[in-house]
Amino acid sequence: MLSCLVNGQSASMLSVQDRGLAYGQGLFETLTLKKGEPLDWQLHMQRLECGANRLGIPFDNNILDGLSQDLNKLLADAGELPEKAVLKIILTRGAGGRGYAVTTPLTPNRILQLNPFPSWPSDPASTGIRVMLCQTRLALNPQLAGIKHLNRLEQVLARSEWQQSDISEGLVCDTDGYLAEGTMSNLFWLSGGELFTPDLKYCGIDGIIRQRLIARAQALNIPVNIGRYLPAVLTDADEVFLTNSVIGIWPVTECVSPGLQQRWPVGNLSRQLSQWLAV
Amino acid sequence: MLSCLVNGQSASMLSVQDRGLAYGQGLFETLTLKKGEPLDWQLHMQRLECGANRLGIPFDNNILDGLSQDLNKLLADAGELPEKAVLKIILTRGAGGRGYAVTTPLTPNRILQLNPFPSWPSDPASTGIRVMLCQTRLALNPQLAGIKHLNRLEQVLARSEWQQSDISEGLVCDTDGYLAEGTMSNLFWLSGGELFTPDLKYCGIDGIIRQRLIARAQALNIPVNIGRYLPAVLTDADEVFLTNSVIGIWPVTECVSPGLQQRWPVGNLSRQLSQWLAV
Repeated sequence: MLSCLVNGQSASMLSVQDRGLAYGQGLFETLTLKKGEPLDWQLHMQRLECGANRLGIPFDNNILDGLSQDLNKLLADAGELPEKAVLKIILTRGAGGRGYAVTTPLTPNRILQLNPFPSWPSDPASTGIRVMLCQTRLALNPQLAGIKHLNRLEQVLARSEWQQSDISEGLVCDTDGYLAEGTMSNLFWLSGGELFTPDLKYCGIDGIIRQRLIARAQALNIPVNIGRYLPAVLTDADEVFLTNSVIGIWPVTECVSPGLQQRWPVGNLSRQLSQWLAV
Repeated sequence: MLSCLVNGQSASMLSVQDRGLAYGQGLFETLTLKKGEPLDWQLHMQRLECGANRLGIPFDNNILDGLSQDLNKLLADAGELPEKAVLKIILTRGAGGRGYAVTTPLTPNRILQLNPFPSWPSDPASTGIRVMLCQTRLALNPQLAGIKHLNRLEQVLARSEWQQSDISEGLVCDTDGYLAEGTMSNLFWLSGGELFTPDLKYCGIDGIIRQRLIARAQALNIPVNIGRYLPAVLTDADEVFLTNSVIGIWPVTECVSPGLQQRWPVGNLSRQLSQWLAV
């Protein structure tokens, strides 16, 4: 961690009574900072607000202004930044009480962490990555689906299924066996000239890059199918790729699980969308 | 909070990089301290170990010894304790890194919080309580079911469904519509001389008092049925009660939801088990 602010103050500790720790009553956002500019700030703030509304976290202009001011302070304090960095924002319900009910007025806590941009051994965005199919399943809960809340044990368990450095990501299905997403990314594939991506009504995180790519594909008159698909559909895909706000787009060139052994090329569409995104 | 230890040191703050906050990769236990003695310490430690194994938290004798020493220190520092108090233990995967994978050796963090014993307006253990049927559902995930991990948003959402002080607890069903538990308690009912409680293979927390009551009922030759039951079965119940390590046993005397409007007496079995428990 390069630096950290808690409610606008340079700090790296939080109360052990924070409801973010106790119950995961909080949200996070992960953004790329490019030359000090946060990419898609507004979209991230929109998702944060949407999540806050669902989790009973008061989200008013004070919070929004607070986050903007925090960001400015973080950047000012950091001095000269590398070309790229990663900003992680955590917003929790605040500290207080014991028990699931919020019985006293609590102020949400804002945490901003500035992290170095990760480096990857090869150039995965150009050459593509190898993935596996995880055994861990995502439970179906429409109340929590889509938002980026702090209850992420399923992702931790899925990510713990491999240690091999030549596997860059895992595909995860829901408990009904349908494709949901990667452990840290959203999944797309192109088949017969149409784009496909799993529906996130029941589980998964509605990524910002996912939102942008769906809109972009529609603008390009590429039909976008959002639904529930079994992993086997990927055997017919012409290209497969994964997205998030830090990696941008990673083409998937191979899946190495017994249940899905398959290779795909780095496709034209992922290249084209990647150039357009310019993360 | 009366007092708090973090890894054996008097403290009330934790790193914002702790994986307990970031992802909920941690567990908690809530115990009653009676005259300074933790009730069912060993059973709580067993559940903690079981949860740690599932979540990839190294749980060795160092942790177990650490928790015992923490408890002794907490009690020694606290001086004279009230007749009863509540001890909350949190064990997290530790602080470090960004991303779901644990890529460097991390030391689990132990947090012990000493809290006053809650007080309730009436004497719910004797006179019984009113409950409602929550709309919030618990998602089905066998990998996370039973253990007391820190991903508790479903409980927070369920508990936020009522503010009325005359409703003491909410019954929660799983996403298939079967009874699971209370927001903070386990559910039992007696029907035709047999005891019933929801199966926790898919969701819910396997409470210590639940474990003890199941064993006790079997010792008393009361058949115990563990299964998946719709809320409607409660209309035929002779007595209904809820359990946890702080409340002990609370008889349910009324449910006030449109989907389940029903009264039950404070039954003999709950009285008898309550005396036996003597929480």
